[in-house]
Amino acid sequence: MTVTKVAIIIGSDSDWSTMEPCYQELKGFDIPVVVRVISAHRTPEKLREFVLSAQKEGIEVFIAAAGMSAALPGAIAAYTSLPVIGVPIISGALQGIDSLLSMVQMPPGMPVATVAIGVPGAKNAALLAVQILALAQPELGEALKKFKRNMVESVDKKDQVLQERLRRG
Amino acid sequence: MTVTKVAIIIGSDSDWSTMEPCYQELKGFDIPVVVRVISAHRTPEKLREFVLSAQKEGIEVFIAAAGMSAALPGAIAAYTSLPVIGVPIISGALQGIDSLLSMVQMPPGMPVATVAIGVPGAKNAALLAVQILALAQPELGEALKKFKRNMVESVDKKDQVLQERLRRG
Amino acid sequence: MTVTKVAIIIGSDSDWSTMEPCYQELKGFDIPVVVRVISAHRTPEKLREFVLSAQKEGIEVFIAAAGMSAALPGAIAAYTSLPVIGVPIISGALQGIDSLLSMVQMPPGMPVATVAIGVPGAKNAALLAVQILALAQPELGEALKKFKRNMVESVDKKDQVLQERLRRG
Amino acid sequence: MTVTKVAIIIGSDSDWSTMEPCYQELKGFDIPVVVRVISAHRTPEKLREFVLSAQKEGIEVFIAAAGMSAALPGAIAAYTSLPVIGVPIISGALQGIDSLLSMVQMPPGMPVATVAIGVPGAKNAALLAVQILALAQPELGEALKKFKRNMVESVDKKDQVLQERLRRG
Amino acid sequence: MTVTKVAIIIGSDSDWSTMEPCYQELKGFDIPVVVRVISAHRTPEKLREFVLSAQKEGIEVFIAAAGMSAALPGAIAAYTSLPVIGVPIISGALQGIDSLLSMVQMPPGMPVATVAIGVPGAKNAALLAVQILALAQPELGEALKKFKRNMVESVDKKDQVLQERLRRG
Amino acid sequence: MTVTKVAIIIGSDSDWSTMEPCYQELKGFDIPVVVRVISAHRTPEKLREFVLSAQKEGIEVFIAAAGMSAALPGAIAAYTSLPVIGVPIISGALQGIDSLLSMVQMPPGMPVATVAIGVPGAKNAALLAVQILALAQPELGEALKKFKRNMVESVDKKDQVLQERLRRG
Amino acid sequence: MTVTKVAIIIGSDSDWSTMEPCYQELKGFDIPVVVRVISAHRTPEKLREFVLSAQKEGIEVFIAAAGMSAALPGAIAAYTSLPVIGVPIISGALQGIDSLLSMVQMPPGMPVATVAIGVPGAKNAALLAVQILALAQPELGEALKKFKRNMVESVDKKDQVLQERLRRG
Amino acid sequence: MTVTKVAIIIGSDSDWSTMEPCYQELKGFDIPVVVRVISAHRTPEKLREFVLSAQKEGIEVFIAAAGMSAALPGAIAAYTSLPVIGVPIISGALQGIDSLLSMVQMPPGMPVATVAIGVPGAKNAALLAVQILALAQPELGEALKKFKRNMVESVDKKDQVLQERLRRG
Repeated sequence: MTVTKVAIIIGSDSDWSTMEPCYQELKGFDIPVVVRVISAHRTPEKLREFVLSAQKEGIEVFIAAAGMSAALPGAIAAYTSLPVIGVPIISGALQGIDSLLSMVQMPPGMPVATVAIGVPGAKNAALLAVQILALAQPELGEALKKFKRNMVESVDKKDQVLQERLRRG
Repeated sequence: MTVTKVAIIIGSDSDWSTMEPCYQELKGFDIPVVVRVISAHRTPEKLREFVLSAQKEGIEVFIAAAGMSAALPGAIAAYTSLPVIGVPIISGALQGIDSLLSMVQMPPGMPVATVAIGVPGAKNAALLAVQILALAQPELGEALKKFKRNMVESVDKKDQVLQERLRRG
Repeated sequence: MTVTKVAIIIGSDSDWSTMEPCYQELKGFDIPVVVRVISAHRTPEKLREFVLSAQKEGIEVFIAAAGMSAALPGAIAAYTSLPVIGVPIISGALQGIDSLLSMVQMPPGMPVATVAIGVPGAKNAALLAVQILALAQPELGEALKKFKRNMVESVDKKDQVLQERLRRG
Repeated sequence: MTVTKVAIIIGSDSDWSTMEPCYQELKGFDIPVVVRVISAHRTPEKLREFVLSAQKEGIEVFIAAAGMSAALPGAIAAYTSLPVIGVPIISGALQGIDSLLSMVQMPPGMPVATVAIGVPGAKNAALLAVQILALAQPELGEALKKFKRNMVESVDKKDQVLQERLRRG
Repeated sequence: MTVTKVAIIIGSDSDWSTMEPCYQELKGFDIPVVVRVISAHRTPEKLREFVLSAQKEGIEVFIAAAGMSAALPGAIAAYTSLPVIGVPIISGALQGIDSLLSMVQMPPGMPVATVAIGVPGAKNAALLAVQILALAQPELGEALKKFKRNMVESVDKKDQVLQERLRRG
Repeated sequence: MTVTKVAIIIGSDSDWSTMEPCYQELKGFDIPVVVRVISAHRTPEKLREFVLSAQKEGIEVFIAAAGMSAALPGAIAAYTSLPVIGVPIISGALQGIDSLLSMVQMPPGMPVATVAIGVPGAKNAALLAVQILALAQPELGEALKKFKRNMVESVDKKDQVLQERLRRG
Repeated sequence: MTVTKVAIIIGSDSDWSTMEPCYQELKGFDIPVVVRVISAHRTPEKLREFVLSAQKEGIEVFIAAAGMSAALPGAIAAYTSLPVIGVPIISGALQGIDSLLSMVQMPPGMPVATVAIGVPGAKNAALLAVQILALAQPELGEALKKFKRNMVESVDKKDQVLQERLRRG
Repeated sequence: MTVTKVAIIIGSDSDWSTMEPCYQELKGFDIPVVVRVISAHRTPEKLREFVLSAQKEGIEVFIAAAGMSAALPGAIAAYTSLPVIGVPIISGALQGIDSLLSMVQMPPGMPVATVAIGVPGAKNAALLAVQILALAQPELGEALKKFKRNMVESVDKKDQVLQERLRRG
């Protein structure tokens, strides 16, 4: 019986459109998910309390998404030793490169597992969380293998469709 | 009893000077580590065989370091559903920004948990691996908490030393 | 009689809109073209098999297009000594600069002939392939000279049209 | 009578070589300065306590210096409404551009007054703090005017020296 | 009784759409604001006169917004010792990164307190000005604390709304 | 009997230290090589004459190396339909990223096969030229396969050496 | 009597929309202008002939606009000692930063007077040409002074309009 | 009889090592040169006076060099209609890319003729000034042609030396 959970924290509710695919991906693997809007800069006390009590709540992996200076995943990492995955959000003038650098360039002692900017990263954050949880939950490992097979089939199908189209001219 | 292992794969033996701190950090947590020089581009067959048999060998987390186009962690991710951590190496004219982007900008379905460029990233890759393994190994969780306390003490000490120095003028 | 072929490999069928001009350009030179959707990360086994058997199938040049971390041309180069041309695709937050760096910054021993990001690169990939094939097929050399003459005439015509327009005020 | 203070917070004692000119500049204006090594990521509790009690301690302006993901000034801003000045430090592979973006790209509601990367920024952080304090301390305003006159004289002198040198050939 | 003022200077009236939120934010704190269109490059004499007489007019803080080479805040700083806040505007091909670097990379002796590119920076410039003025105006300090509480409530509300939405599915 | 040649053109003799490994690599494959110092900007007439007469001289592939604005490979491409390989040189303040973009971002109709910045690119330019020539010279294909096998052995050896070193502690 | 001319050369007729404001600006100063579509890469012979005969035709200043690798102004500079002004065009994935670097990073001995990317640069290229011609044509100097006065008036007017608008609320 | 002059203005005497080759190049053409250390930010009044009286003093072209935010050439352009050439200096963390963007991205109406970063740009600034002055001074045109011939000879000689060296093996 799975009781461990993944927490998706977004710094602003405007990040939800990017992160909903992350949530859906986790749901597709039947992972219990907690979603919260908590800002590292605007609600630091709430973030601290949430993170400090997270392990007791059964949270095993954090996924934190933020735009611009994107301190959120690092601020979470400061209060926990659980794995923290960071998703840079496209926002503002610099299109997420600021968020990417803020997340990935963490000082020694404080890792943030950073993934791609935007929706591709949101989906990969979910998969990375599943891969991590799968180490202790063999049924998730099976689900991941099925997920990979589905990707193969999906690419194969697109390959056939395109070749068919070109053959017909 | 711990039998799971972390595999550190480097694309070139010149990456070792950056990755040795990763190895030492893992050793400090008594994690069994496999270190291999396998190139995604120069020895693709070997990489494939190694990754496909990794799970059987007890490997639970991959740490892959590479410079320049840095395809290594993605090439590993292509053959496994185990978590893959990528460390961009400073090399060539672009000082690792090329490696960072190659690693972090993975397409949906294929996450690489990317950390900082160079030695800070190498150390954080080790800690991230420990955090991941700690989910199923409570004693690692304790070790991580001790590690955090040591960091706090180390910063506190430096704080006192600097203040003392300034007081003396 | 020409039996050699160019293979266009795209990592995702969404890359086709960028690469269709490449296909059309090759068709304009009467070059036989194989088009495939094969992903370096999602279908690595298929890629390996396709590349390892390519030479037998008469393929002489690979053109590989991919976005984001864009490992595809390098993954092809890992399995063949045939020339590999890489086309970075505009996709995701970084608009192809990530793909460009991933393709061009290959380590020593493993060249990818990289061209411009997006459609200009797609067209140039085709021409580069024709230039390469032309070394052994004199009739292609003639076709390329005619292509150059057409470009000259096209620029000349635009020059006249603009001057005419300005003269009329 | 001046009792207000400027607090210089550095995330790591290795940042001191960059920030000592900031300290000296403030000392040159007879501003009381508190210097602390407190890390946003490694000692978050200490940072929180220090900032929350800062106003009571007479601190009026924060100067925070950090390298890489450089969350420090934003983390301070999260707990105070006092002005926070951020100095990006040159460190790691990206030479401070990561720190600059992390500091300056703060979300609405949470300003960090960011200055130049490295020593020029360290000096300017001090001057900016003096300019801010001078609004309520007229004698600092006078000192700043003298500082400006000294700059003018210093540039004039260098101008004369260079012209003299060229005249002599 | 508050008689001090904030001056918002924009280099071009096209910058007003970005800076109006700055103006509104200051108005929300009941700060008297002077708004002027004065260009560092096109009307340098007017800028000089305005800045040299600013202190007499009761101006205590400058907020200067400009796009492209964005010399405006630095040109103001050249003529005053009052704090100057710089807001980089998104304009032209480089989307404000040129303006950001021009503003933040000021030489030693001449600070510009730089904030984020575009509207987030415009809002933060206002808040930074309020924070600076609050050092001598305790009622502004209270207003800032209320502003922070409102931000907390706003984030909390969004948190509840999103959780409610997800609960309903 | 091989009579075809590769021409290495460098824009400045200071580029030779980067390009000598390219020359050596080609020599290792027994490819006749012509090396010339001809600048696109300083000696345009000479470049034009050399390129226009190249095909008659038996040249089949151009390798052009240049730093900064790096117009050389494009200028060659303007006068020929032979394949042109571009090697960006590290020089000046921007460390070759200027040269890389100048070379790779060629307009449609005028491909330059661009490789990595600096020495890695120099070596890969040679290999790419060999791959191109190998299409018509089967013995070069054999030599390339041997080259690949040597790379595999070299990586394997480094793998064993490192493992041995770690085993010994 | 003015008989000297400015030549505007564009590499592609798609650059005209950016460069028409340059043409209009020159026309506003009654400068005779020659406009030509000549590509450095596609019509190198024509470019060479045009530039070599330019001085005889009375051309005194070249303005060259191009996108992507943007070799045009440098290719002109290679054949003349007349001043060459370069305008980087926004085109392709990199939005003109590639063109800017290609134009401005010319090797020693071969200057290109580079201006801003896109329309602002197009206008400034015209003004720079007028400034250059004005050295020998005093009436152009007068026209430039009038142009500056108009700019001052235009900024002043916008200043008044905005202030009026704010006064009315 | 030549009485017109070129003014080289540097923002700091530390820029002289970069700009001395500019001075030498101008001296080689027997151009009278005025060199001044005047800072746009530190000595704005002096800059204004110098520029406003420049035309009377016979100055025809300004060359302005500066590092970091590099407002100097734009500040000169604000007060004159004479041509202003900008040389970005390598200084600080960003190695001149900040200076380049500040100089080149001037708003419409205010051109700065920007050249390459550092010494190559310093030399080219001199040549550009000579090209501009040559429009009214035919003997400078002759000198420029001789300069070009010397460049051709110098490249030819290096070409022969390298070929000779390779022939000897």
